[in-house]
Amino acid sequence: MFSVTVRDHIMIAHSFRGEVFGPAQRLHGATFVVDATFRRPDLDADGIVVDIGRATDELRAVLGGLTYRNLDEEPDFAGVNTTTEVLARTIADRLADRVHAGAFGDGARALTGITVTLHESHVAWASYERPL
Amino acid sequence: MFSVTVRDHIMIAHSFRGEVFGPAQRLHGATFVVDATFRRPDLDADGIVVDIGRATDELRAVLGGLTYRNLDEEPDFAGVNTTTEVLARTIADRLADRVHAGAFGDGARALTGITVTLHESHVAWASYERPL
Amino acid sequence: MFSVTVRDHIMIAHSFRGEVFGPAQRLHGATFVVDATFRRPDLDADGIVVDIGRATDELRAVLGGLTYRNLDEEPDFAGVNTTTEVLARTIADRLADRVHAGAFGDGARALTGITVTLHESHVAWASYERPL
Amino acid sequence: MFSVTVRDHIMIAHSFRGEVFGPAQRLHGATFVVDATFRRPDLDADGIVVDIGRATDELRAVLGGLTYRNLDEEPDFAGVNTTTEVLARTIADRLADRVHAGAFGDGARALTGITVTLHESHVAWASYERPL
Amino acid sequence: MFSVTVRDHIMIAHSFRGEVFGPAQRLHGATFVVDATFRRPDLDADGIVVDIGRATDELRAVLGGLTYRNLDEEPDFAGVNTTTEVLARTIADRLADRVHAGAFGDGARALTGITVTLHESHVAWASYERPL
Amino acid sequence: MFSVTVRDHIMIAHSFRGEVFGPAQRLHGATFVVDATFRRPDLDADGIVVDIGRATDELRAVLGGLTYRNLDEEPDFAGVNTTTEVLARTIADRLADRVHAGAFGDGARALTGITVTLHESHVAWASYERPL
Repeated sequence: MFSVTVRDHIMIAHSFRGEVFGPAQRLHGATFVVDATFRRPDLDADGIVVDIGRATDELRAVLGGLTYRNLDEEPDFAGVNTTTEVLARTIADRLADRVHAGAFGDGARALTGITVTLHESHVAWASYERPL
Repeated sequence: MFSVTVRDHIMIAHSFRGEVFGPAQRLHGATFVVDATFRRPDLDADGIVVDIGRATDELRAVLGGLTYRNLDEEPDFAGVNTTTEVLARTIADRLADRVHAGAFGDGARALTGITVTLHESHVAWASYERPL
Repeated sequence: MFSVTVRDHIMIAHSFRGEVFGPAQRLHGATFVVDATFRRPDLDADGIVVDIGRATDELRAVLGGLTYRNLDEEPDFAGVNTTTEVLARTIADRLADRVHAGAFGDGARALTGITVTLHESHVAWASYERPL
Repeated sequence: MFSVTVRDHIMIAHSFRGEVFGPAQRLHGATFVVDATFRRPDLDADGIVVDIGRATDELRAVLGGLTYRNLDEEPDFAGVNTTTEVLARTIADRLADRVHAGAFGDGARALTGITVTLHESHVAWASYERPL
Repeated sequence: MFSVTVRDHIMIAHSFRGEVFGPAQRLHGATFVVDATFRRPDLDADGIVVDIGRATDELRAVLGGLTYRNLDEEPDFAGVNTTTEVLARTIADRLADRVHAGAFGDGARALTGITVTLHESHVAWASYERPL
Repeated sequence: MFSVTVRDHIMIAHSFRGEVFGPAQRLHGATFVVDATFRRPDLDADGIVVDIGRATDELRAVLGGLTYRNLDEEPDFAGVNTTTEVLARTIADRLADRVHAGAFGDGARALTGITVTLHESHVAWASYERPL
């Protein structure tokens, strides 16, 4: 199995509802360093999983819809805790939609899976892995 | 599949028995930077795998039983080489015991797996992965 | 010259005033991984710059006054852009106050300088360096 | 499942054929930081997956055949794009050959898998995973 | 003293002349992860050393003139070993020219120094520091 | 000012005397990731501060006298706490001796300073800087 990963980041504000979150129930924020991994069992004719430049551009496009925002006010997340895990799934799903729409090129339709990891600090991160 | 990882570290002395270990047969030591990963297929009602603060506290509690010690003199490791691999398994098993005992909260009983990675330097690390 | 550095982090929300900031004028947030460096020309009788455990505790105490907050609503920052640079200075000054107050121990009064570095992402960070 | 990973690096020149590569069609180069992971379900009698020193030596031996070269002129890669993905597979396959030839010791014949990850920068990396 | 640092990278081919370089006399290549640090004793009216977004853009512009090239064929480096140290100086000098030309904004004319660090691998890097 | 840094590591056991050290008074251990920085105001005729390969070899030679040992039993450290700071100075001084003895080559006699940083974990490190 082959994979390619590209990294970028977002900087957002948010708050959580639920006692388990303790002080994170207050409005605060995070930098999420985002790693997007694309998987497929075989390489394409060019010898790649997906072009790293194109994957970088697509990840940036997806992250552009999230960064520099207060997620508490985004309609997409109404009634949802925007935890690291939830955001990992959101980003993975949006990348999957772009793969299916052909934004990564026709060869990328052979991708079989995506994993998105969000690093919220040097000591904590979360991942979501899904098929394509 | 979702996962959350938290990081902490221990600083221990030990020695190994067996020619394969060369100079590491002498009493020496290591800092192990420890990554504990918790997995489950679905998020709980709060939108998390496990609370990152709670996971951090539980990892610290487990590591508190190992750090600042000479492992050659710990009864738990009598007759055992405390290799990076063995310590990864020990820590994973102790975390699993605490999950089963409810220390991570009732929601954490839905966890399906744990991976523990110990970084012994910037150029070597070992992991142990187990189901829950 | 000797130095010791300890690392911790904060997670905050804020916004900036000024056209130069572009989209960062909106309410957003950041994880700042904070490195606090303590300097002195000679070691104390124990062979240290400052005890790493104590430095870690003091840094955590200072950061406890900042983390999990919306800095736009903190009276200490009224009328001030809480840029990475400004926060580095704030944290350095607060650590300096604690050194002067004896919180790092009497030996630490021989410290001659502090540098605080805030990493706002994997691709950007800022520092403030001051004498003691 | 247990694993051990060791890290080293190569510094090579190469160019790619194919419009998808854009400016990387020109002769350029890369440092690849190489992580080689060895897996097995159980530890050997010494309590290890494979000796880290030996794994480090074997990885260095394999990388010695690649580093400080222009891969465009290497017969092994004639007609092949030496992408990060292709090089990950090449290194994994060469390590597998050495495992099978006994270079990692007899105990290492119980290894069940290898993963090789090549980091081409701080924001992009690729992996190849194979059974043994 | 305040500083801000931004990170980017280049991927180049080159070779060195001189016995001291051993196998690096052959055509090979490198990824250089480039950290550009800007210093000044006081912050501007916005509370910054230089806008991080603008510094990132300017660094990218300078690196655009170097990346995806065989430096052995670049007229700017005729007769010069493009060592990590030499490239650090080149990048620092080109950034300094842009500061002086006003590309970083008028406020940035108060910058007093630049340091450029090039990481050629996980185990080696070089820096060049200069006044402005 | 130019500098070059190379990285390696040691794995040692030791204990500290002094109440300030708390649990670190017990025999324990550490991996120290060691960064050795060499400085000079101008480059040599080859365009380098010091050859990175040679610096790597010399650092390894110095570290070979420390690693895989219990420092409590080393005559060189009798009556001395082998703190991170003390070890940084020891390594810097031993590297300086080798520079003066010509081990880094004649060109390296133009070096003007050395800094050694020891990372004892992902959250703590210490440095010692000295002239040559």
